Amino acid sequence: MAANSFGEVFTITTCGESHGAALACIIDGVPPLVELSEENIQPDLDRRRPGSTRYGTPRNEADAVKIISGVFEGKTTGTPIGLIIENTSQRSKDYSDIMDKFRPGHADYTYLAKYGIRDYRGGGRSSARETAMRVAAGAVAKKVLNDLFNISIDGCVSAIGDISTDVYSAKNALENEFNFSDPNKIDDLKALFKDLATKGDSVGAVVEVRAHNVPCGLGNPVFDRLDAKIAYAMMGINAVKGVEIGDGFALAAMRGSQARDEITKDGFQSNHSGGILGGISSGQEIKVKIALKPTSSILVPGRSINRFGEECEVVTKGRHDPCVGIRAVPIAEAMLACCLLDALLLHKAQCFNVNEQSFVLPSE
Amino acid sequence: MAANSFGEVFTITTCGESHGAALACIIDGVPPLVELSEENIQPDLDRRRPGSTRYGTPRNEADAVKIISGVFEGKTTGTPIGLIIENTSQRSKDYSDIMDKFRPGHADYTYLAKYGIRDYRGGGRSSARETAMRVAAGAVAKKVLNDLFNISIDGCVSAIGDISTDVYSAKNALENEFNFSDPNKIDDLKALFKDLATKGDSVGAVVEVRAHNVPCGLGNPVFDRLDAKIAYAMMGINAVKGVEIGDGFALAAMRGSQARDEITKDGFQSNHSGGILGGISSGQEIKVKIALKPTSSILVPGRSINRFGEECEVVTKGRHDPCVGIRAVPIAEAMLACCLLDALLLHKAQCFNVNEQSFVLPSE
Amino acid sequence: MAANSFGEVFTITTCGESHGAALACIIDGVPPLVELSEENIQPDLDRRRPGSTRYGTPRNEADAVKIISGVFEGKTTGTPIGLIIENTSQRSKDYSDIMDKFRPGHADYTYLAKYGIRDYRGGGRSSARETAMRVAAGAVAKKVLNDLFNISIDGCVSAIGDISTDVYSAKNALENEFNFSDPNKIDDLKALFKDLATKGDSVGAVVEVRAHNVPCGLGNPVFDRLDAKIAYAMMGINAVKGVEIGDGFALAAMRGSQARDEITKDGFQSNHSGGILGGISSGQEIKVKIALKPTSSILVPGRSINRFGEECEVVTKGRHDPCVGIRAVPIAEAMLACCLLDALLLHKAQCFNVNEQSFVLPSE
Amino acid sequence: MAANSFGEVFTITTCGESHGAALACIIDGVPPLVELSEENIQPDLDRRRPGSTRYGTPRNEADAVKIISGVFEGKTTGTPIGLIIENTSQRSKDYSDIMDKFRPGHADYTYLAKYGIRDYRGGGRSSARETAMRVAAGAVAKKVLNDLFNISIDGCVSAIGDISTDVYSAKNALENEFNFSDPNKIDDLKALFKDLATKGDSVGAVVEVRAHNVPCGLGNPVFDRLDAKIAYAMMGINAVKGVEIGDGFALAAMRGSQARDEITKDGFQSNHSGGILGGISSGQEIKVKIALKPTSSILVPGRSINRFGEECEVVTKGRHDPCVGIRAVPIAEAMLACCLLDALLLHKAQCFNVNEQSFVLPSE
Repeated sequence: MAANSFGEVFTITTCGESHGAALACIIDGVPPLVELSEENIQPDLDRRRPGSTRYGTPRNEADAVKIISGVFEGKTTGTPIGLIIENTSQRSKDYSDIMDKFRPGHADYTYLAKYGIRDYRGGGRSSARETAMRVAAGAVAKKVLNDLFNISIDGCVSAIGDISTDVYSAKNALENEFNFSDPNKIDDLKALFKDLATKGDSVGAVVEVRAHNVPCGLGNPVFDRLDAKIAYAMMGINAVKGVEIGDGFALAAMRGSQARDEITKDGFQSNHSGGILGGISSGQEIKVKIALKPTSSILVPGRSINRFGEECEVVTKGRHDPCVGIRAVPIAEAMLACCLLDALLLHKAQCFNVNEQSFVLPSE
Repeated sequence: MAANSFGEVFTITTCGESHGAALACIIDGVPPLVELSEENIQPDLDRRRPGSTRYGTPRNEADAVKIISGVFEGKTTGTPIGLIIENTSQRSKDYSDIMDKFRPGHADYTYLAKYGIRDYRGGGRSSARETAMRVAAGAVAKKVLNDLFNISIDGCVSAIGDISTDVYSAKNALENEFNFSDPNKIDDLKALFKDLATKGDSVGAVVEVRAHNVPCGLGNPVFDRLDAKIAYAMMGINAVKGVEIGDGFALAAMRGSQARDEITKDGFQSNHSGGILGGISSGQEIKVKIALKPTSSILVPGRSINRFGEECEVVTKGRHDPCVGIRAVPIAEAMLACCLLDALLLHKAQCFNVNEQSFVLPSE
Repeated sequence: MAANSFGEVFTITTCGESHGAALACIIDGVPPLVELSEENIQPDLDRRRPGSTRYGTPRNEADAVKIISGVFEGKTTGTPIGLIIENTSQRSKDYSDIMDKFRPGHADYTYLAKYGIRDYRGGGRSSARETAMRVAAGAVAKKVLNDLFNISIDGCVSAIGDISTDVYSAKNALENEFNFSDPNKIDDLKALFKDLATKGDSVGAVVEVRAHNVPCGLGNPVFDRLDAKIAYAMMGINAVKGVEIGDGFALAAMRGSQARDEITKDGFQSNHSGGILGGISSGQEIKVKIALKPTSSILVPGRSINRFGEECEVVTKGRHDPCVGIRAVPIAEAMLACCLLDALLLHKAQCFNVNEQSFVLPSE
Repeated sequence: MAANSFGEVFTITTCGESHGAALACIIDGVPPLVELSEENIQPDLDRRRPGSTRYGTPRNEADAVKIISGVFEGKTTGTPIGLIIENTSQRSKDYSDIMDKFRPGHADYTYLAKYGIRDYRGGGRSSARETAMRVAAGAVAKKVLNDLFNISIDGCVSAIGDISTDVYSAKNALENEFNFSDPNKIDDLKALFKDLATKGDSVGAVVEVRAHNVPCGLGNPVFDRLDAKIAYAMMGINAVKGVEIGDGFALAAMRGSQARDEITKDGFQSNHSGGILGGISSGQEIKVKIALKPTSSILVPGRSINRFGEECEVVTKGRHDPCVGIRAVPIAEAMLACCLLDALLLHKAQCFNVNEQSFVLPSE
């Protein structure tokens, strides 16, 4: 119910604004006896943090996370884990110009219409700054997934503007500042970003994330399907406007004889369905794609109105990413990790008496 | 938490298998004092029911719904509304051939792996038959949306296989048996279905749904965004593998100057974002697209294994739709209706003290 | 969130009014592979049903339950179980006299104030008739608790009016029509009920329920304690106004040296805490007491007003229990069963990686 | 689902151990536009804080609360409110003696059995220290209840050991260090506490809380009744073992003609039901009583075992309250405030279209 909470057994609840004192997160439902420290969380935060890439915002935040509860002598205790990240690099004066204006494409107007008040500094709660805590919580989920289930999650950018690739490679993505999976497109991307910088414009992106070694049986048949839960998690990320599982929209153009994943003694022969059948994981790789729209915080003047209903021109100065997709990889990984851990724990409650070894196909 | 429930204030909970005695639904959170009878529900069921189109399954179900509680002297009382639809046209013997086989692309394998048991008759709970109750519940949501908020919802098929259109027209869709929005494509579709019938194959589809006159302010900033909730609802429909809000994946290729929806005194000048900004409705039309994969219940023989791990050939006889997208239009409308009513009621709890007339732009 | 749902993993959702067509319940989260049929449910319904005791309402309902889904070849499948009980003995004309009056002590006034409409026939949703479905769902919970965990639950009446006992005996309770635990008080009770019949009055009661062989570790430290969950379940039963765990209010008068349950190698040496410490089950017997107020549906004239604000006299004819506590034993058992099964399943999700054999004391 | 969260629309989530770095709370669902600062929260914290009474623990914590989000220019924004209280007066060495022992009557044993690990310092999460955050969150709820609904909540201690009173007076309670409602019993209480100090023992208590000016209509008919929600909230407080609404257990001994609250044009003529009928508030004062057991942290030696299964003697030195009931008044008030605000907001979602002025009796 709580809008700022995610998950049912493994639950994360966040608070914090772009220019407030701090961001905080309470993670409930972490299994006990898992080794955990700040060192397990900080690396993912470092991948997301502003200042991590030349092609992101120049705002520079250390994003140093502190665990305040739920860990005793290096291990989780089963009680809720509190995380705090202090905000240190606010430059609120950047925003005085837009305090009364609704940036087109941004949440300024909808927040004010809903709440009758808004913290305009850096977008307040609508800022992507909030996603730092998702990444931190996701790092905890990844640690549990890895330690207790040997599951790993990775991701990459596979399209920026009209530059796209069929290659999926999390490894390649770590080797360039665009987190892009295809090294052959880096020069094109550099040219694109030079153009964006010149024009003060931004561009959209496609991010892909995958989970490896996910057991068969996670999820539910109706409403609370694993793919539905993933779609909820992914569409809940700032700027995301599309989600695909497996081949996604391409499946609409296929025939059944082509789209079904045939099975032999060696396991599934293809993975068009992205590792989920009937809302339940099949034991194959979970494959997810998301589309992020271009940020609306740009230097190109746009038409809008202010809170008094007067028309005005909006130019967003501040410090913004020309492509929010680049820093979105760890965010998408984090949300997938939270989804899967929640589904795993829930499955333990639902089917604890089912022999897990029955009917399991050889995995990838 | 309950996997077979949807929504938080307006909550629907369903049960029932394809070949069981009946389907049932309990709808909680319907506001009191709304006029309601079976006549408000049956028309949408008739649009979805098997036998409604020549291009669907030949299974013929009356799908006659009965209200068993929550309505007194023609009006809702605020107590939960119970709905029952009896199953009348089961032909379970069709399924004896596949009781031990896993149809590729179907949930047979994942159900058995999860639960250690499965009702193989007609797919049991994984059958699209379950969606009858979603449509019934959605019809109740539509009635409330219409009576109390003047909101309407409609939809159409905009792609089947490689035949697609940019036209959105719910009106056109009512005039052909494909529920297709573009009348110029009907001949192509007839040819396609003739081919499918010859080959015993199936095909995927894209369905679009829209909501009109939705007020600004519904949804939440983080996690429980309106678009996240819609993505959850849509991806929870059988066979859906992709969801887009507004321009969806096309936004990934756009620039910010192009994708943002500019604002003047006359309101928004475009609707790339599909009526949702920062997770909150903007007062524009809500625009949603979903991709449905081709059904895996086809006559084309496919490779699989049986529950004993032996390889086998699967041919699904039964009575199946060559394109499940055609009958999915009322299902997608229903889920959107449930989403919006839930978000509306929740918004009443969240922001009851905000003057709703402030900051509202002229609507479409 | 749904007000008519109970539980988080094992979830029951009910609908139905006293004089509607039927009562229904959807039970979600039943583990798969449990043998289940109507025969496992009917006996508890028979203990609760109107007409089961001379000292209850003369309304006579067969309360025959039908399973409509979730069971296949005699076993649960993990999908939701639908239950239906048809209403057969409505005599709605009894209620025409009170359709506009608010019976003092009853929910007539509060329902109308909340919803602006009420189904006055037999109290509508506020009727204890609704509890039939709790008993049915509880019987399913009991079956699972017994089959998978060897846990049993029983109960008895330990006070009616000023006749009370310290004896706890579920066995004795089955042998008299008052469900009373102390056979030495039966003559006193008969005299009391003769007096109530003469005067057309009713009386309150205390019901006790216990759970045997509950493992240590169920529940949670904060907010969602096992005792909190039990208190919620019990106070949610019609007419209940007090709940005690273990020695309850008597503990307020004790000293710490007296109230703490000391431990030796043989286990706990007393059970003042009722089997729950810090919100978590201790492995001892769970002990719960509830106080039920006397029903307000009596023949003794009372002062009230009608919906037009006019003062009036109320005499409730209908067919009512002089002591609702008598038939409440299976209801309280049912709610305790639902609580414990939910807590057990949730614990499987929370602490699946903890070795259950560590630190466990010898049980009773 | 999250065990450390409370409420559905107004939701509080807490973390923190007795001897950890800090306590934190995230409050979701606070309506926007309410004036709020630390000054609105600190006074209730000061009533609860250790060191506030001579008759409590000598541990002295400033319990200075800091708001880190959700408030902008002095007003709530509708986004989640983060609260932090740093721990400053830990003396963990006090606990080395009991790190391996299970204090009888305490949660030491059940925590270890559940989680396989426990933070033994000061009881970790099971410490009443955690209630500081409930009080802080309750103070926010009280502020909203007061500002938007003109509802107030107060409380007092009405029994300590065998010293009890029928007087309810929150005003009197503020004037003595026992928070006791009856000034005539203060000398008796002083003698009692002198005796407790001499013997190193503790004692139980009864705390009463009431809510004034609560509108009619809050709550729900089945399961999620207002009284059920209150029982859940109250039984979730450390050491509480009994909850009564209105006359509670005394109602079991009454007759219907005596227990029902008759109604005239002037309103209800009595309040045996404690302001709740059929699970829904009646517009009368909400009356709640709770029983707290004596703390088990005492100097009187007790028998127990250690984690190795060896028998041992336990003497709890540390710094403990001889009667935890004394400092529990603001905690019980806080939980009642959270309950009522949650029920109020939910009611806005459920029945927004009901004319609130219909059928409302004159209030107290």
